Amino acid sequence: MAHDTNSRGLIAKKGIELLTFGTPNGFKVAILLEELREAYGMDYTFQNVNIFENIQKEPWFVSLNPNAKIPLIVDHDKGGYAVMESSAIINYLVRHYDTGYKFHFEDSLEACTAEQWLLWQTSGIGPAQAQANFFYRFHHTRQPFPIQRFVGETERCYGILNARLSTRDYIAGPGRGQYSIADIALWPFVESAGVTGIEISKFPNVFQWWERIATRPAIKRGMCVPSGKPFMYGYEAMKKKREEDPEGFEAAEEPLRSALEDARMEFGYVYKSP
Amino acid sequence: MAHDTNSRGLIAKKGIELLTFGTPNGFKVAILLEELREAYGMDYTFQNVNIFENIQKEPWFVSLNPNAKIPLIVDHDKGGYAVMESSAIINYLVRHYDTGYKFHFEDSLEACTAEQWLLWQTSGIGPAQAQANFFYRFHHTRQPFPIQRFVGETERCYGILNARLSTRDYIAGPGRGQYSIADIALWPFVESAGVTGIEISKFPNVFQWWERIATRPAIKRGMCVPSGKPFMYGYEAMKKKREEDPEGFEAAEEPLRSALEDARMEFGYVYKSP
Repeated sequence: MAHDTNSRGLIAKKGIELLTFGTPNGFKVAILLEELREAYGMDYTFQNVNIFENIQKEPWFVSLNPNAKIPLIVDHDKGGYAVMESSAIINYLVRHYDTGYKFHFEDSLEACTAEQWLLWQTSGIGPAQAQANFFYRFHHTRQPFPIQRFVGETERCYGILNARLSTRDYIAGPGRGQYSIADIALWPFVESAGVTGIEISKFPNVFQWWERIATRPAIKRGMCVPSGKPFMYGYEAMKKKREEDPEGFEAAEEPLRSALEDARMEFGYVYKSP
Repeated sequence: MAHDTNSRGLIAKKGIELLTFGTPNGFKVAILLEELREAYGMDYTFQNVNIFENIQKEPWFVSLNPNAKIPLIVDHDKGGYAVMESSAIINYLVRHYDTGYKFHFEDSLEACTAEQWLLWQTSGIGPAQAQANFFYRFHHTRQPFPIQRFVGETERCYGILNARLSTRDYIAGPGRGQYSIADIALWPFVESAGVTGIEISKFPNVFQWWERIATRPAIKRGMCVPSGKPFMYGYEAMKKKREEDPEGFEAAEEPLRSALEDARMEFGYVYKSP
């Protein structure tokens, strides 16, 4: 397992090899692999693919994933079969390796309910939060219209998740639910909500669910793949940064928050969800 | 089956009931249901949910789909089980009703390959093209940065699809491929490329694949659900509009195209894919 060096090609000969970087879509897969390791003793290899250095656009990577994105897995026990798309990877891993149905469901309707929320993450909160992150924080200029559009859509999604969790402990499963791929897929996005300036404590059911799952060892370990250290935009990391240097934190965050508030005023945005 | 009136609640007592509107995500499901009808004689009921009138935000609809979006299916033969998210619906339908594996694959790796492309549509081309449509055509002002960002990402996706189809007739399946849910999910997006001003003839493999599938009766019928008539932004419909009234067509399209070209100049956009 390589933490800092960039992958230049596949290195494993057996088992699952994960090529990834520290993003919510990457963490999804790393968390599931850590859960599978804990539950079944299944080992895996991971490598770092620094997307800021465009390693994922190198020809050897594109030959494995034509879409040129992380995460990617290669199953060396299945003839080097490669799987792109984090949610397809999640489904592949549980169908082939979660033989005891610890993280997905044997019953076809329960399985479909978990898949509905997995795909709601894939098509909904995932793409919305990615754009919100870009426009709220990472792009070098503040574009008022898309800031409020994408942060607003992300908040709508958090409202829907909050409503879903009003009567349950986990997103899918009978009764109050059972920890599954639906939680694994959504947790890293909620953990990263601070990137977009969203305070998860404003969504109390989401916050309790976030806390309930945060203590799992596989979550803690998966969130450190591939860097070997906690995610710099994780909930605790951002809280610590704010506590250690309130003025510096505020000086960095305030312009982002103001730009969002100005954009909301300009375009008459009102939070409505679900 | 209701074409023009809006749904005010469920009407069927048995089989699948589809609540939908004329969008690519809606067409995906309608096409698969038409294929299942043709292959297995399986009937279904559909209703119109006009999203411009916010029918999908009415409490009865939200009680079935908390995300308040079309399409939605209810399976009356499974105790009224409701499925949201078009790709979860696709998987639900083939797993329960495509018993002869005509539209998905029995082999677990072939099934995963089809699912990778289904989820590439779900997380990639789908959300990108939806934003491109909004910023290129439907929003009442032209926002230069997001126009070129989302049209550019959509074009990148068309380039990836074009590369995938350089050695195959269909997206998944052994050899040159076999028509499947991967094609069904992607076809309505390609059919609607004109909304974003993308000329599919610039992607020759995509264009040939589009033509190959366009002749299927289930495609033609599915594209008329729920309106009863061909999609106004479909390839042939836009071509006809251009031929019948070249000046009127150009007067409407030219400002959109110019805004995109200006935005590309302003932000130095260069097409690169894959």
